[in-house]
Amino acid sequence: MVNETQHTCSASCSSRSDGSSSGSESSKDSSRCSTPVLDADRHERLREKMRRRQEAGDKWFSLEFFPPRTANAAVNLISRFDRMGAGGPLFIDVTWHPAGDPGSDKETSSMIIANTAVNYCGLETILHMTCCNQTKDDITGHLQKAKRLGLKNIMALRGDPAGEEWEEEVDGFNHAVDLVKHIRSEFDDYFDICVAGYPKGHPEAESYEADLRHLKEKVFAGADFIITQLFFRPETFLRFMKDCQAIGITCPIIPGIFPIQGYHSLRQLVKLSKLEVPQEIKDVIEPIKDNDAAIRNYGVELAVSMCRELLDSGMVHGLHFYTLNREVATTEVLKRLGLWKEDPRRPLPWAVSAHPKRRVEDVRPIFWASRPKSYIYRTQEWDDFPNGRWGNSSSPAFGELKDYYLFYLKSKSPREELLKMWGEELTGEESVFEVFTCYITGEPNKNGYKVTCMPWNDDPLATETNLLKHQLEKVNRRGILTINSQPNINGKPSTDPIVGWGPSGGYVFQKAYLEFFASSEIVTALLKVLKKYELRVNYHIVNVKGQNITNAPDLQPNAVTWGIFPGREIIQPTVVDPVSFLYWKDEAFALWIEQWAKLYEEESPSRMIIQYIHDNYYLVNLVDNDFPLENCLWQVVDDTFELLN
Amino acid sequence: MVNETQHTCSASCSSRSDGSSSGSESSKDSSRCSTPVLDADRHERLREKMRRRQEAGDKWFSLEFFPPRTANAAVNLISRFDRMGAGGPLFIDVTWHPAGDPGSDKETSSMIIANTAVNYCGLETILHMTCCNQTKDDITGHLQKAKRLGLKNIMALRGDPAGEEWEEEVDGFNHAVDLVKHIRSEFDDYFDICVAGYPKGHPEAESYEADLRHLKEKVFAGADFIITQLFFRPETFLRFMKDCQAIGITCPIIPGIFPIQGYHSLRQLVKLSKLEVPQEIKDVIEPIKDNDAAIRNYGVELAVSMCRELLDSGMVHGLHFYTLNREVATTEVLKRLGLWKEDPRRPLPWAVSAHPKRRVEDVRPIFWASRPKSYIYRTQEWDDFPNGRWGNSSSPAFGELKDYYLFYLKSKSPREELLKMWGEELTGEESVFEVFTCYITGEPNKNGYKVTCMPWNDDPLATETNLLKHQLEKVNRRGILTINSQPNINGKPSTDPIVGWGPSGGYVFQKAYLEFFASSEIVTALLKVLKKYELRVNYHIVNVKGQNITNAPDLQPNAVTWGIFPGREIIQPTVVDPVSFLYWKDEAFALWIEQWAKLYEEESPSRMIIQYIHDNYYLVNLVDNDFPLENCLWQVVDDTFELLN
Repeated sequence: MVNETQHTCSASCSSRSDGSSSGSESSKDSSRCSTPVLDADRHERLREKMRRRQEAGDKWFSLEFFPPRTANAAVNLISRFDRMGAGGPLFIDVTWHPAGDPGSDKETSSMIIANTAVNYCGLETILHMTCCNQTKDDITGHLQKAKRLGLKNIMALRGDPAGEEWEEEVDGFNHAVDLVKHIRSEFDDYFDICVAGYPKGHPEAESYEADLRHLKEKVFAGADFIITQLFFRPETFLRFMKDCQAIGITCPIIPGIFPIQGYHSLRQLVKLSKLEVPQEIKDVIEPIKDNDAAIRNYGVELAVSMCRELLDSGMVHGLHFYTLNREVATTEVLKRLGLWKEDPRRPLPWAVSAHPKRRVEDVRPIFWASRPKSYIYRTQEWDDFPNGRWGNSSSPAFGELKDYYLFYLKSKSPREELLKMWGEELTGEESVFEVFTCYITGEPNKNGYKVTCMPWNDDPLATETNLLKHQLEKVNRRGILTINSQPNINGKPSTDPIVGWGPSGGYVFQKAYLEFFASSEIVTALLKVLKKYELRVNYHIVNVKGQNITNAPDLQPNAVTWGIFPGREIIQPTVVDPVSFLYWKDEAFALWIEQWAKLYEEESPSRMIIQYIHDNYYLVNLVDNDFPLENCLWQVVDDTFELLN
Repeated sequence: MVNETQHTCSASCSSRSDGSSSGSESSKDSSRCSTPVLDADRHERLREKMRRRQEAGDKWFSLEFFPPRTANAAVNLISRFDRMGAGGPLFIDVTWHPAGDPGSDKETSSMIIANTAVNYCGLETILHMTCCNQTKDDITGHLQKAKRLGLKNIMALRGDPAGEEWEEEVDGFNHAVDLVKHIRSEFDDYFDICVAGYPKGHPEAESYEADLRHLKEKVFAGADFIITQLFFRPETFLRFMKDCQAIGITCPIIPGIFPIQGYHSLRQLVKLSKLEVPQEIKDVIEPIKDNDAAIRNYGVELAVSMCRELLDSGMVHGLHFYTLNREVATTEVLKRLGLWKEDPRRPLPWAVSAHPKRRVEDVRPIFWASRPKSYIYRTQEWDDFPNGRWGNSSSPAFGELKDYYLFYLKSKSPREELLKMWGEELTGEESVFEVFTCYITGEPNKNGYKVTCMPWNDDPLATETNLLKHQLEKVNRRGILTINSQPNINGKPSTDPIVGWGPSGGYVFQKAYLEFFASSEIVTALLKVLKKYELRVNYHIVNVKGQNITNAPDLQPNAVTWGIFPGREIIQPTVVDPVSFLYWKDEAFALWIEQWAKLYEEESPSRMIIQYIHDNYYLVNLVDNDFPLENCLWQVVDDTFELLN
C-alpha cells in the first residue's frame, strides 16, 4: 500500500515488470528456500515474529507488490517472489484492486497472487482488502476464502470511493475501522490485522490530529501493527511515531519506504497520494528527469540515507518497501543497508510452504526437488503432512497433474526460446542426449544457444549439482539422461554455504542420489550390474506403463538427506519412497510430451523422437546407502557402459 | 511341556533353580536386548516367523520353562529369561500348573510369568493352557486375560484328570481338540495355537495310529504347529514325522529335546510320562548315577548327537528344549550345535517389548536405559507408543512407581549382600562416593566386597560404559555420582560388537551423555562453567523438589542415539527429553530411599546420610551436541572442579 487511492496508479504505471530478469540471473536451485531458519518462525504468527525480531534487536524488511495485469506478468511476478524472497523479507504484501476482480480465481487477482506467495513461494504474506462499496457478505466471503487458502494476515483499508465525492453508506463499511471490527467480530483472533498510517495525515482528514485519532481507533478496534504511507524525510516519520506514542498507540509502526525509481512514476504517485515532493528533491531530479539511470541512482542514495537515519534513531526495527513490482532499486538499497541476506539460512533443504496446515511438514520425496510448486499443488488436498517420518503407512494420494497451464507451474521461457534451447529439429535420440549434456555443461548447443532450463527443471543447474558436473556430462553424452541428483555428504556443518540447512551448530548428511531416463538396452545391462551392488545400492526402475523393478525392502522409504542439530530430534527432510515414485513417474514422463514434444508439429520427426523416448525409456533412481564412502553410483554407470561394449 | 502328566513333576523336582548364576555371570547391560534384528520379526506372528526361518534355511531353537514356586525363584527365573533370551530363542513357553492358580495375578502364576517374559523381557512366548476340569467361562476368562496382557500364542493341552480314572464330562472339555476349537470359535485367528505330539503315541491312546488320528484332528481344528513329547532316539521322531505327513499333517512339527541333567530327574520324568529309557542309555547312566557332573556331560553329548542327526535329516528346522528351568546343560548343547547366538544383533539399543501394542515403539528417553522394565511398567497404560519421533507434543503420563516390590523390578541381591556392597555403616557423603567409585572400577570396597549393582542399575557396568571407566572413576571419587552415561560415536558400523544395533550395512551414532547426582555446591560451579558451553552442551538440572534449570530449546527432545540404514528412514531410539526427565527424577531420587536408605535402621546415621543426599543433591544430565568432536563433558567437569578449588 502506498496510498489507499494509489492502487490503481501503481498497477497502471508498473504492471509491466522489468521482465529481463526471468530466471537466468539466479543460479539458485528453485528447491532451495529462503524462509528464516528458526523453527519458531514456522509456528509463530506475524505479530509474534515481529516482536521476537524486535526483542532480539534483529532488523528486518518487507516488500509490497501489486497484482499483475496479464498471465505472463503473473509468471514473472512469481519468479520475482522467489528471487526477492531469497533476500529474507519478514513478509510481503499484495495490494487489492477493486477494479481487477481481486477476490476471484483469476491468475491476476490479488487473492490468487497472495495464495501463490504463501503456498508456493513459502512467503509470509499480507493480503490487502478494501471495504467501501462492498456488502458485508462480499467481504466475509473474501475473508473466508483467504482463510481457506491459508492466508493469515489482512491489511484493512477503506478503499477508493465510487465517485469523486465521498458518501457515507448507512450500515455499510465507510472506514477501515469498520473492516477491522468486522474481521475481529467474525474471525476472532484468526487474522493478524495491519492498518495504514499517514505521517502527514490522510489527505481527506480534517486535520493531522484528527487523523491520529482515527488511527488510534483502528488500533483499538483490533489492529496489530501499522504500515505508513511513504514520506520523503526521516523526521516526518519520527515525529509521527512520537505523536502516535503520545496518544497511546503502542503497536509496531513500520515506515513505508519508496525508493524513487523514475521521474514519471514519482509524479503520478505524488499526484494520486496528494503528497508534496520537498523542494530539495525536486531540485535534484528536475535537471536529470530524462536520465532513468541517474534518477534511480539518486533514488537509491536517498532511500539508503533515509533508512540509515531511521534505523539509527533506535525507534525503527523494520522497513517496508514499495517495490512497484521492480527488483533492482529495492534490492540495491537493502544490500547497501546490509539487510539483504545473501545466504539466508534454510530451515530445510526445500522451500517450506507458509500454509498453516503445512506447518509441521518436514519430509518430502526427493523426486519433486526441482518442481516444488508442482509437489505443493499435487498435495494441496492432504489433511495431514508427514512429520518426522514419511512412513510406509502414508498412502500418498497425489492429485493428478493435468494442469500444466497453471501460471505458477509454467515454464518461464516462451516457446521460441525453448525451441532454440532444445532444438528446432531433432535428428535422433542423440540430439536429445546433446540437449541434456548442454544443460549440464552450460556450453552453447550446436546452434549457439545455452540450455538454461529443461522440462524437469525450469532453473539453471543447482550449485550443489555443479559438484557432480563432470560425471554428469560424461553419462548424459551416452544416454543416461539425468534429471535429479545429489552428492553424498558425510557430516558437513549445517552452515555450509552449498549443502547446509537448518539451525547452526548442526551437521548435515546425504546419501548419493541419481535419477535418469535411459533406454531399455541400458536398463537391461544396469540390472545385471546392480546385482553386484545389491546390499549397497537401492534402485527403482519404471517405464511409462508402470512396469516396476525395485529392491526396496518392504517398500520402505529411504532417508537420503538428514540433519543432526543441538538439542533437537533428527530431521530427515527428503526420502526416496517407492510408492510416491510411481506418482512422480507419471509427471516425469508426461513432461516429455507436455513441455517438449508439443513444441513440434504433430507427425513431425522431432515430435516422434520425443514420443519414442516417452514410450520406450525407463525412469531410474539409484541411492548409494554407504554415505561415508566414495559415491559408487558413477562406478555402477561405468560398469553398465562397459557391459554394453 | 514334556508330557501333559509331567508338569507337576518338573515343578517339584526343579523348582529350585540353579541360582548360582543370578546376575553376576553376565556383564551384558540389561538394557541391551536380544530379539532378532529384522523389523519383520517385530510384526510377524510366531507361525510366520517359523515359516520365514524355514524358507531361509535358518535353524532355530526354543526353550520351555515352568513357573517358579516362590517370589525369590521368580526373580531368578526372570534373570534367566534375560540371560537365555540373549542366545536368541525363537520363542519360550511357560507351562500351566492347575494346582498353582495358573491364571491368577500371583507372581508365581503361569500367566504372570508369561506376561513378564513378553512385556518385560521382550520374548516371543507361548502360554500353555489345559482344559479338563474347567468350565468354559474359566477358560474364556483365562484367554481374554492372556490377550489383554499381549500374549499371542497358546499351547492347547488336555491336562491331568482330577482323579486316577479318566471320566469324560458331557459338554465339557475332554480333549485338547475341544480347547483348540474353543479358541478358534471365540478368538478367531488372534492366537497362534500349538498342540502336543507323541512320537511313541500318548500313553493313554488305544494305539499309535489312533493317537496320530487325534493329532490330525487337533491340527484340522486349527492348530498351527506341533511340539513333541521328549524321545530318546532320533529315529523315533523321524518315523513319527513321516507318519504324520503320510496322514496329511503338513504343519511344522518341532522335536522336544530333553538333555538328561541328573539321574533322579530322569527317573521321575519317565515314570510320569510312561516312557521307557532305552537299554543303551540305562547301561551308561546306571554305573555313574551318583556322579551328577558325569551324567550331565553324558546328557549333553547325547543331546548334541541326537540334535545333529535330526538337523542333518533335513526334516527338522527348529529344536525345542525342555530346560527344567536350568541353564547350563541346554546352553552347552546349543553352543555346541552353533545355534546359540553369542552376539545376537539388536534391533534397537534397548530391549523391545513383545507386546503387540508396542510393536511400533522405537523411541525412548535415555533415562531408563538401565531400568527398562521400570520404563515398560510405567508406560504400560499408554495407548500409543512413540514411533519415529518422540515429539514435544507427546505429553507423557508416566505411571507412578510405588511398586518397588514387584518381582521383576526388584534387585536380584538380598539385603545382606547389598549391605556388604554399599556399606554396613556409612560415615559421611564420602563413603557414598566410595561406593559409586567401586561400582565403576570393579575394585573391592574397603571391606573386600565388590560392588556389582547400584540402586539405579541392577547389573554390572555395561561394556559400552567401560569405554568411559577411567574418567568415570575420577569424577565419582570427587562427588559427581554418575548413574548413566554413553560415549559419543560418529558413524560406527551397525554390526559393531559393542555399540552396534539395527540391520547390518548401517551406521550408528551417539551424542555423549552424562547423568549424575551432585551437591548444590558442585551444581553452582557447574552452572557457571556451562555458560562457556552454552551452544554445545544441553543440560537439565533438577532437585527432588522439582526446581529445574535447563537450556533445552522450547522444551524439545534431543536425539542422542540414531542409526542410518540401507533403504530405510532414520531411526533415533533414544532421546533426552525435558518433560519425561521430571518423571524419571521422581524415580531416581526415590531409589536412594527405597533401595538404599531403607537398608538401615530408622534414625541411624547411615540412613540420615542417604536422606541428606536425597533431600539436597541435584540430578544433572549433560549432552554434548558436537558428536564428531572429542567429548567435551569431561572438560566441563574438570572446569567445574577447578572453579571449586
